[in-house]
Amino acid sequence: MRFDHVGIATRDAATLADLFADLLDTPVAHEETFDGMRVVFLELDDGGYFELLEPESDGTIADYLDREGPGIHHVALATDDLPGALDRARELGVDLVDEEPRPGAWGHEVAFLHPRSTAGVLVELVEQ
Amino acid sequence: MRFDHVGIATRDAATLADLFADLLDTPVAHEETFDGMRVVFLELDDGGYFELLEPESDGTIADYLDREGPGIHHVALATDDLPGALDRARELGVDLVDEEPRPGAWGHEVAFLHPRSTAGVLVELVEQ
Repeated sequence: MRFDHVGIATRDAATLADLFADLLDTPVAHEETFDGMRVVFLELDDGGYFELLEPESDGTIADYLDREGPGIHHVALATDDLPGALDRARELGVDLVDEEPRPGAWGHEVAFLHPRSTAGVLVELVEQ
Repeated sequence: MRFDHVGIATRDAATLADLFADLLDTPVAHEETFDGMRVVFLELDDGGYFELLEPESDGTIADYLDREGPGIHHVALATDDLPGALDRARELGVDLVDEEPRPGAWGHEVAFLHPRSTAGVLVELVEQ
């Protein structure tokens, strides 16, 4: 599996996108409103991304911000075979948030592993 | 800048390394004791890493685990010009944890940006 992105929970995606665009010397690659969130992607030089997540309504990111404050929310890994990767996780006894691939931001198929199985690390699997 | 690794704070690096090695289908690439921590690197298929950090004595990772629990601690970006990247961060008004590059794990030069300047996201810059 390859690095795809780190997901960052923020209360102000536009301001943080401006800062990271300057700091990383990269423009915003994509932005959209998805599933009640403003989602902004900044592309790194190797094709990975910072994904900024700002809630526009109640939901898991709003809850996360209330509980933990802003910061790194998850790490996403790219796979060419998402169903196979989920089968492998199941075989290893890893609990899944998403038992099957579902539509994610930017038109990708995604599934999250449950952090109770991965020592508090929220891992997203992505198939582009 | 390119993705280098996500740093993960854990109380049991060996067990978590076994799980991620199976899940990511990759062996441990490097491990060492550095600065009072057990540090284990697992390599992704694109050359990025998961860096597992287990404190063996008091310090920032032990404090982090007490305060936040286990999980993703920081994201590290690779640069070929760490002093230049720090100058750029300073020009943008970003506070630095490390004003100058310092030796990090695996023999790399590293410097951390202060998360108060980056909306709670702890960013490490790495020059290999």
